[in-house]
Amino acid sequence: MDNNSNLTNSAPGGLPRTEIAQLGEFGLIKRLTKDLKYSNRSTCKGVGDDAAVMSFGNKQVLMTSDMLLEGVHFNLEYVPLKHLGYKAAVVNFSDIYAMNATPTQLTVSLGISRRFSVEQIEELYSGIRLACERYGVDLVGGDTCASMTGLTISITCIGQADKNQIVYRNGAHENDLICVSGNLGSAYLGLQLLERERQVMNVNPNAVPQFEGKEYLLERQLKPEARKDIIQALAKAGIKPTAMMDISDGLSSELMHICEQSGVGCAIYEDKIPIDYQAAVLAEEMNLNIVTCALSGGEDYELLFTCNLSDYEKLIPLDDVYLIGHITKPEYGKVLVGRNGEELQLRAQGWQAFGNES
Amino acid sequence: MDNNSNLTNSAPGGLPRTEIAQLGEFGLIKRLTKDLKYSNRSTCKGVGDDAAVMSFGNKQVLMTSDMLLEGVHFNLEYVPLKHLGYKAAVVNFSDIYAMNATPTQLTVSLGISRRFSVEQIEELYSGIRLACERYGVDLVGGDTCASMTGLTISITCIGQADKNQIVYRNGAHENDLICVSGNLGSAYLGLQLLERERQVMNVNPNAVPQFEGKEYLLERQLKPEARKDIIQALAKAGIKPTAMMDISDGLSSELMHICEQSGVGCAIYEDKIPIDYQAAVLAEEMNLNIVTCALSGGEDYELLFTCNLSDYEKLIPLDDVYLIGHITKPEYGKVLVGRNGEELQLRAQGWQAFGNES
Repeated sequence: MDNNSNLTNSAPGGLPRTEIAQLGEFGLIKRLTKDLKYSNRSTCKGVGDDAAVMSFGNKQVLMTSDMLLEGVHFNLEYVPLKHLGYKAAVVNFSDIYAMNATPTQLTVSLGISRRFSVEQIEELYSGIRLACERYGVDLVGGDTCASMTGLTISITCIGQADKNQIVYRNGAHENDLICVSGNLGSAYLGLQLLERERQVMNVNPNAVPQFEGKEYLLERQLKPEARKDIIQALAKAGIKPTAMMDISDGLSSELMHICEQSGVGCAIYEDKIPIDYQAAVLAEEMNLNIVTCALSGGEDYELLFTCNLSDYEKLIPLDDVYLIGHITKPEYGKVLVGRNGEELQLRAQGWQAFGNES
Repeated sequence: MDNNSNLTNSAPGGLPRTEIAQLGEFGLIKRLTKDLKYSNRSTCKGVGDDAAVMSFGNKQVLMTSDMLLEGVHFNLEYVPLKHLGYKAAVVNFSDIYAMNATPTQLTVSLGISRRFSVEQIEELYSGIRLACERYGVDLVGGDTCASMTGLTISITCIGQADKNQIVYRNGAHENDLICVSGNLGSAYLGLQLLERERQVMNVNPNAVPQFEGKEYLLERQLKPEARKDIIQALAKAGIKPTAMMDISDGLSSELMHICEQSGVGCAIYEDKIPIDYQAAVLAEEMNLNIVTCALSGGEDYELLFTCNLSDYEKLIPLDDVYLIGHITKPEYGKVLVGRNGEELQLRAQGWQAFGNES
């Protein structure tokens, strides 16, 4: 690195130009983090899981970061600021729970344009603080600065766990059971519903949004919860998952991450994927394939995990946990078994930020 | 919090509107973090210092976050992306050193618009990685997402220290010595120089920027370093500061933070404030008051600390550490003693993000 500035360096001369959309989010991260080396003994796990893991004294400390940008991740036309704050915090807690750990501290950095008043930022913060209270997490710092346009929220969450308690993505083995919590596709359908009603209101400002009988879908989109209860239930039942992650980009994409990092294949069954009744009804109404919504919808913040076959008896009594398939040899591939027994290769059609960019 | 969305809630109904500029950055943070309660035993220090402090096992773990926004914190017309990445990482390390601790891990969240190519983001990352290598910090995670406009960088840094080693802002006592490292005002003058040359080039694109004899000022603005060396020298000399912070917003503003949090006053001497020769020359050339630049310029990332009077003998031999005044009783106020002995009350004229917002 030379220390002389170059006034015309904003488009570095001589560099080729590859569009980020060509690589996608995961491709870009892979390229940026290639050959990273770690020099601190306290670093146990870096890039490549729901959270980084560090070892301080006799405790494992976890860290995860998420950034939310107005116009990309949220639309303030239909997302109340308090809900946005709540969700921004909860999605970070979800990443920590997905490592079988407990979130403990949070920092919040905000970039705020002049469009926002102090009271609006307080609304946002009240949602963050409510989430912190409910999940027992301490808001310990951050940064607040002016932005040229829109609202930027960047949150980092710290968690902790005993060393032997942490669950990574790479521990799935052949014959392990594949499970998910809750149901899938509802958050995506909630978003479709909000978008549809927004468009109606753009045409006719006096229209009344049609949300009756679909309140659950809105809640799933606007106020997701992290599955602390599932982590607690698993611990109580004496089940330690072999691999786990939260479903933020869609079941299909997340399951592929687990398979790739664990070096295994999988088979999941279409008719075992848990789907909510309201989601099925709205998908029908909007002419969407509900299974595609469940596989690729994203933002459900449910837990996807694998566990040893010997845990089957302990698993079955658990509330809101569903067995959807099993881990196979890698050569079997990643397979979705349809209702009529046909086998399809899973594809990652999760939410791809750079592909969708307008 | 009710779970029903409100499609027209982007400007919450019934809320009064206070402009953020009225409160300023610190006022806003104060209001947002009022009455925060902490529920985790591991939380030792939350909002209100350079970094949060947590206790895990027998180690203290620190966490700091900074957000940088294009058009607010940096201008890519004259900041090379590699330098920007380097600086974005180093300013976080500086916050950890300012607690007398060692930075160990980093997460990087990026919001990137389509304007940027993969190669440009790699340039940015190469600066971040270089800083991490030089300071022995591990890049362990983050988030990468599309943005509608411009580049957003949010970095969180973790550090560690033994429990009795951490230095807060609130430990200054009457008669303590006030010291700074390096020199002040140079980074601000580097920015003024870059802005001046940018304006010249906007008028005449063929103009050659006039940087000769001013390279040091550019380096201070574009490639600041965190004062790891000073932290090490203090430890070696057996000096534990009573209070410390890094100078990111200007000496005046930072010293007022220490005085307010410690419940003390201060007296610093104009002729003791360390100023670089190139900075003095450029200030003269641009008709700026060099003392004002040093007091309020910001972005120097030098260390401001107080230490016990009994450490005087150990302090004097230290390279690049300057004694600029002493801590007084609170009723004495926060005083700048001029070259002719006149006393002025210090005012916080540090970089005020929201006040400057255009």
